[in-house]
Amino acid sequence: MTEARRPVKKPPMREVLAEAAFQLFLERGFERTTVDDIVARAGVGRRSFFRYFPSKEDVVFPDHERCLADMTALLEAADEGDPVSTVCDAARLVLRMYAANPEFSVQRYHLTREVPGLRTYELSVVRRYERTMAEYLRGRYVGTPDGPLHAEVIAAAVVAAHNNGLRSWLRSGGEGDAEAAVDHALGVVQEVWGAKAAGAAGPTADDDEVVVVVASKSTPMWRVVQRIESALAED
Amino acid sequence: MTEARRPVKKPPMREVLAEAAFQLFLERGFERTTVDDIVARAGVGRRSFFRYFPSKEDVVFPDHERCLADMTALLEAADEGDPVSTVCDAARLVLRMYAANPEFSVQRYHLTREVPGLRTYELSVVRRYERTMAEYLRGRYVGTPDGPLHAEVIAAAVVAAHNNGLRSWLRSGGEGDAEAAVDHALGVVQEVWGAKAAGAAGPTADDDEVVVVVASKSTPMWRVVQRIESALAED
Repeated sequence: MTEARRPVKKPPMREVLAEAAFQLFLERGFERTTVDDIVARAGVGRRSFFRYFPSKEDVVFPDHERCLADMTALLEAADEGDPVSTVCDAARLVLRMYAANPEFSVQRYHLTREVPGLRTYELSVVRRYERTMAEYLRGRYVGTPDGPLHAEVIAAAVVAAHNNGLRSWLRSGGEGDAEAAVDHALGVVQEVWGAKAAGAAGPTADDDEVVVVVASKSTPMWRVVQRIESALAED
Repeated sequence: MTEARRPVKKPPMREVLAEAAFQLFLERGFERTTVDDIVARAGVGRRSFFRYFPSKEDVVFPDHERCLADMTALLEAADEGDPVSTVCDAARLVLRMYAANPEFSVQRYHLTREVPGLRTYELSVVRRYERTMAEYLRGRYVGTPDGPLHAEVIAAAVVAAHNNGLRSWLRSGGEGDAEAAVDHALGVVQEVWGAKAAGAAGPTADDDEVVVVVASKSTPMWRVVQRIESALAED
């Protein structure tokens, strides 16, 4: 009763719009929600919406465009180190975008699973990340046999590994260490595709050293590679 | 002038509808073409359309549902051989669907590149193939460390390799050997992920034999793997 009146901090317009959109998508589905519905719920004008978001989908994935731009910049600025390690770093930008706002990311994860239109939109975005990485790798593999093929396969593997780690974290409700989950998953790709010296915790490259591997012929190739990796780590 | 009159063979309704739809998509875009437009152009009733195709997209990709069912059946019937080899066989079903009708496939390839709605639909279909393969691999990798992660990464790599081979063939206008292009691409995945005995041209597994590889530490891992593969082939 005697509580002092404090100024209520208004949430930013961007968040008000995103909140209204989320409510409506859950209530009536993504396809049947219009931008007009969203601005009515948020109590703002139609123009405000388009000042913040180019489309209805962007309300749900507001940061992908910026992240794609960051990824392109990272890849353009990358030095001549291991290309696979570089695209793994690029993938980590996406993870960090999700991890910056766990609650929103987990809520969106559940929404996206329920709304086919959003799943489709997400697929398109993921594909753009994959293409960005593949394009970088193609540039790095110019002149090597099957360069473009390796570029596309590795980009797809990096994206799949990243998404596996990201999904584990999202399914856990955004608890735990998102970076560790993704690092572990990306490690599987780096084991087989990366230059051996690429791992942050791995040994530095030394052209004079050699590795000898002895393996039974029936051992799956990735187990052979794991053994090579551990031999190097012990070194 | 004296040419004998021969009965003109009417193309099947399915093809008449697909042809009309293709013309309209190219003329006015996918999004702005309705099913009513398509049946009007084809000169048939609306019901005929839905007898053949559940949606507008299915006119463009009429065989994916059947192919997905075939893939599921192939994977369910697969024996205990190399799982990576099995999913590569599953991927070849998709290739054969495209290769069965080169002209249509090439035409669709160009249409799909021009129509965002079709690209999105295609992404969804590709994702369904990938999930089908990943699910199979998860089952095969039960109890192995990081089984689900390996399943997802390998499925993504197989899909990327398959699509690389398929696209090369489509870009060539459907000339040349589609199967050879895809086999070569899938070989890159089998090199690193498959059991070594999996390759059709490779040696049979022999637990008593060993392979020794000596490589400079700065060699990229996939080159090391290529060397292991060629050592095995020479054996």
